[in-house]
Amino acid sequence: MRTSVAIIGGGPAGLMLSQLLNRAGIATVVLERRSREYVLSRIRAGVLEHGTVEMMHRAGIAERMEREGHPHAGCYLSTERGKFRVDFQEQCGHSVMVYGQTEVTQDLYAGQDALGAHAIHEALDVRPHDIDGDPYVTYEKDGETHRIDCDFIAGCDGFHGASRKAIPGDKKRELERIYPFGWLGILSRTAPAAEELIYANHPRGFALASMRNPQLSRYYIQVPMDDSPDNWSDDAFWTELKLRLPDDVAEGLETGPSIEKSLAPLRSYVCAPMRFGKMFLAGDAAHIVPPTGAKGLNLAMSDVHYLSEGLIAHYKRGDGSGLDGYSNRALTRVWRAIRFSWWMTSILHRFPDQDDFDQKMQEMELENLRDLDAARRAMAMNYVGLPF
Amino acid sequence: MRTSVAIIGGGPAGLMLSQLLNRAGIATVVLERRSREYVLSRIRAGVLEHGTVEMMHRAGIAERMEREGHPHAGCYLSTERGKFRVDFQEQCGHSVMVYGQTEVTQDLYAGQDALGAHAIHEALDVRPHDIDGDPYVTYEKDGETHRIDCDFIAGCDGFHGASRKAIPGDKKRELERIYPFGWLGILSRTAPAAEELIYANHPRGFALASMRNPQLSRYYIQVPMDDSPDNWSDDAFWTELKLRLPDDVAEGLETGPSIEKSLAPLRSYVCAPMRFGKMFLAGDAAHIVPPTGAKGLNLAMSDVHYLSEGLIAHYKRGDGSGLDGYSNRALTRVWRAIRFSWWMTSILHRFPDQDDFDQKMQEMELENLRDLDAARRAMAMNYVGLPF
Repeated sequence: MRTSVAIIGGGPAGLMLSQLLNRAGIATVVLERRSREYVLSRIRAGVLEHGTVEMMHRAGIAERMEREGHPHAGCYLSTERGKFRVDFQEQCGHSVMVYGQTEVTQDLYAGQDALGAHAIHEALDVRPHDIDGDPYVTYEKDGETHRIDCDFIAGCDGFHGASRKAIPGDKKRELERIYPFGWLGILSRTAPAAEELIYANHPRGFALASMRNPQLSRYYIQVPMDDSPDNWSDDAFWTELKLRLPDDVAEGLETGPSIEKSLAPLRSYVCAPMRFGKMFLAGDAAHIVPPTGAKGLNLAMSDVHYLSEGLIAHYKRGDGSGLDGYSNRALTRVWRAIRFSWWMTSILHRFPDQDDFDQKMQEMELENLRDLDAARRAMAMNYVGLPF
Repeated sequence: MRTSVAIIGGGPAGLMLSQLLNRAGIATVVLERRSREYVLSRIRAGVLEHGTVEMMHRAGIAERMEREGHPHAGCYLSTERGKFRVDFQEQCGHSVMVYGQTEVTQDLYAGQDALGAHAIHEALDVRPHDIDGDPYVTYEKDGETHRIDCDFIAGCDGFHGASRKAIPGDKKRELERIYPFGWLGILSRTAPAAEELIYANHPRGFALASMRNPQLSRYYIQVPMDDSPDNWSDDAFWTELKLRLPDDVAEGLETGPSIEKSLAPLRSYVCAPMRFGKMFLAGDAAHIVPPTGAKGLNLAMSDVHYLSEGLIAHYKRGDGSGLDGYSNRALTRVWRAIRFSWWMTSILHRFPDQDDFDQKMQEMELENLRDLDAARRAMAMNYVGLPF
């Protein structure tokens, strides 16, 4: 088989790239290791930046999001001294959209189906080959090895995928920070604690009250790295969460059985450059951010934006500058988001080696936000997303 | 002898307090360990916040500053990728005033002389007594012990002074951060490198190009804590400085013999509360900031502002609320400046334990300033000084 762009990975990055390229008349094949049902059952991020919302429109799949998504014009930051709000709309004229990654994926599948785009699920052992020459991809399916020849490969297969690993070690530079804690998260069919997200800095550790919709809540608490969801009954989780949230919020909190409970490590990671030969990395395949600040999915979308522009310019106008500039362009925005999510993580969590002075500086960073309009504006601009 | 307010320490904090109180008709005695000549020969800070400039006017000693001082409407931040300017005037409508602490002290002496204020120099072993009851101060001069009874004691005697030490250990809470490097500074009769200050983040370490006036330059380079001025010839200093400044600045740099060369450690320190009984601490006696951000002298001035208001309200209107609220009011502003100078220090210096990720985040903090108007505004507002 031959296609123009072989896309490894059928998560939101790969599907969105396929969607934008197919709409431009460029042939793609999406190769996904899991089944469609499995991909749709994954619970992931839920906050879309302003620019990601616009991208859903450009991809022609925004209708349900506009109907069912929940625009948030601000969020709360909570400390022992009380909570305060950062008003995104007031500060920079944009909101974010609360709309789960699962919903985005579902809308992308529907969009892909409508376009008749080509996706192969349960494609095992997907591997890029000859990426510096005449590239092709191989995979196993139904006991047989298949090969797809292509002009370009898009590596959208996440942090553990084969794409980044195919780049020789001396051709990439990796920077990483492992944070000394994790997030224990639950999903429950309860009314959210508040209409907007609450990020809480508390002596017992960070907590986040978020939601997918008015009947589905998502809560997180900071726990030690080596903790396990098995150590936490639902009751224990709710008790701990209430201790960390503002009193008025904890009092009225609706609790119920968890329908998902999991522990996520926190990591910042960047691989540069994001191109090697005819292969381009996008999303988690090239970079990871801690969930604080909700940048993961949104960064994947900005990568795909730049990459789709580059590919379309190449195929439509024979203009290779977008592809040549892809890595630098994408990384400029990636590093800004890495900084922002590192900063959000730094000011909100308790670190094991933090002394009293560090804690006071953390408190003062939050007070600087509370008291200084310009500081809230800088935060709001980063939170709703810097321009693509 | 009896006075209303005994002021321990004749640096800018003590002299300014005495100046404001004498102008309000409140009797003071300033006790200073050193001679007037010695105090005037000390080389210290040189950047006055907007609010400090206003205070010089209220104290009736602003005439020479307005004539000889140099308003700076911005400053430069320099990185390996080039330098950029933060425009204070544009961002928040205020400038800072470059006018050496030595000049401020000289103007304060002149103001004190004109008012006939009482100062005792070369007063040795100055000690506050009975600060929780009927306070008095003792000191040694010309081989004899003297005693001054008073209503209140103002401890303006700096970090190593006797005032703070007189507060029982269980009545004060101290927070401290020692930074793992120092600033080696020289003063030279040369034209400054630029019209405004340049703060440089460089792989070899931080550098600062500053000045006192158009013929007197002040330069600093980051060095290890255990370094010594004796290790640095003038030539070695200029060579190292040029490596760390932007190329275009280094090229045109005028060098010459140093007329002062010294090494300063970098420390953040706060003692709370700033009142014990009838004694009030002000300035370095209560808190120390690293010189990055030029907050030391200015914080002393805001303390003195609050303390003078409290004392005047007490004596003129029998209103004790200003004195009761002094510590909280002063500390609120102190902590903001501690945060700001800690942050400036953090983004500009090389730390011995910094890894590649930390360095990249430092670089990104600077790029966030360069690229985001709101981030520069937040910095400018802190730099020119938050309102008293």
